[in-house]
Amino acid sequence: MQKIVECVPNFSEGKDLKIINHIFDAAKSIKSVRVFELEYNTSHNRCLFTIVGSPDDVLNSVFEAIKKATELIDMNKHQGEHPRIGATDVVPFVPVSDITMKECVKLSKKLGEKIATELKIPVFLYEASATKPENRNLANVRKGEYERLKIKMNKPDYGSNKIHPTAGAIVIGARKYLIAYNVNLDTTDVNVAKQIAKKIREKDGGLKAVKALGFKVDGFAQISMNLIDYEVTNFDMAYREIEKETKKLGVGIINSEIYGMIPLESLVKTVKNTFKVDSFKSEQILEKKLWE
Amino acid sequence: MQKIVECVPNFSEGKDLKIINHIFDAAKSIKSVRVFELEYNTSHNRCLFTIVGSPDDVLNSVFEAIKKATELIDMNKHQGEHPRIGATDVVPFVPVSDITMKECVKLSKKLGEKIATELKIPVFLYEASATKPENRNLANVRKGEYERLKIKMNKPDYGSNKIHPTAGAIVIGARKYLIAYNVNLDTTDVNVAKQIAKKIREKDGGLKAVKALGFKVDGFAQISMNLIDYEVTNFDMAYREIEKETKKLGVGIINSEIYGMIPLESLVKTVKNTFKVDSFKSEQILEKKLWE
Repeated sequence: MQKIVECVPNFSEGKDLKIINHIFDAAKSIKSVRVFELEYNTSHNRCLFTIVGSPDDVLNSVFEAIKKATELIDMNKHQGEHPRIGATDVVPFVPVSDITMKECVKLSKKLGEKIATELKIPVFLYEASATKPENRNLANVRKGEYERLKIKMNKPDYGSNKIHPTAGAIVIGARKYLIAYNVNLDTTDVNVAKQIAKKIREKDGGLKAVKALGFKVDGFAQISMNLIDYEVTNFDMAYREIEKETKKLGVGIINSEIYGMIPLESLVKTVKNTFKVDSFKSEQILEKKLWE
Repeated sequence: MQKIVECVPNFSEGKDLKIINHIFDAAKSIKSVRVFELEYNTSHNRCLFTIVGSPDDVLNSVFEAIKKATELIDMNKHQGEHPRIGATDVVPFVPVSDITMKECVKLSKKLGEKIATELKIPVFLYEASATKPENRNLANVRKGEYERLKIKMNKPDYGSNKIHPTAGAIVIGARKYLIAYNVNLDTTDVNVAKQIAKKIREKDGGLKAVKALGFKVDGFAQISMNLIDYEVTNFDMAYREIEKETKKLGVGIINSEIYGMIPLESLVKTVKNTFKVDSFKSEQILEKKLWE
């Protein structure tokens, strides 16, 4: 059993590749973690990447990246479409394997304290780490953005009541792993996808922890989902629910897509659930033996 | 991508725990592999364990174990219920990930040559490595056992035509990964399990690469299967076929069991197949990123 956590820091630089790579490389300077999926968006003027590894190593890795971003990014010069309050804007920790949400909350607080002390940047806690209910929602914490906080700072969870002159403030927290899952329907009628999406999403009385929308992609109807808690609704459950609805409407399923990365535990749960393999454990996977 | 191979060497010692542990520890002396699932049987007077790792490391690990077994086991004193021809009796290599059967055959031949040269033990090749059709089947190679080969040795693939005076001979080869998979039925009538087993197994015209028998376990009917090539018939396909038969007979499925270890690729294939996730790859599993 090895505790594995994921961290997806977002930084306010999406144009200067030299700066982006300096931040990315700083995260990689901790050799025991894996750092990957660097993405940047020039109109958002923002980049992000993924770090996975043991809790302490991930904390050290993201801290190095944040330190570098603090050196290289000046928020007074930053412009971009995406809301942000700092050079390092938001840092979520996500449990991947053998680790609880509570441990990830603890980790986020440890990082917050370290940043406030060593880098003199005020830190707000959000999502599962929030200390005030209104701060659970990232949009609330970011309201008014860097420019407003420069004039009137809210009381942060760590650090002084004064914003950092160039790096602004940082939002840190813990949240569940999000699985992006799409099902492609054998119809060109987007309304079928919209209708099924409405039927299966939590908002309209469907499956818990499922967000869903209907789109037209490559000429066919697609149900695009965010599974915000696979321990509540995993992708196999979403698939079966959609299959039920398609049968009612006489429409077929072409295929489905898992977009991006997925925790091993989600596959294990899917197999257990679908084939009633009650006793199955990820420890039975041969490769896992070798990797731990 | 990391080539991973499994090796399950069988040794002719199942009573003396000191000797068994010396052999097990010799395999472990190669630090980069994982050695586990040590099993021994006193009436068979035989032990076996599993080694996983990169091809060369696994070869070195199993060679160390074979060398130790050659030192410590005298076949002239060996008695046991299980057929055997040597101190190290049989050594199968099994592809686990990113490695072909052909590469495993090559590996088995490399080991055979090394053993014949360095340890002076004659080696027969079996299964996918066999150079004669009759040697594909292990039972044929082992016919007459150590005692007969002492008097009249067949021509081995490597080494001289004379058996080793204390270690006998060794059978080495490559075979596919075998998944042990059981489905427990909601009936106490073992005949239902026997009937379905007959219907689904290859021998009687059912699913390819499936061996199946019906048993009564803990008072309930069980279909016990060996899936000898999960790339042909994976456990999800066996489950669905059984489900179809149980529905015809009006019997329920209590649960199913994957017995022992399973390659990650079998899970990935199951998920792809069951939920039509055509594009899904094991590289999308977060933990895999970290482990490679």
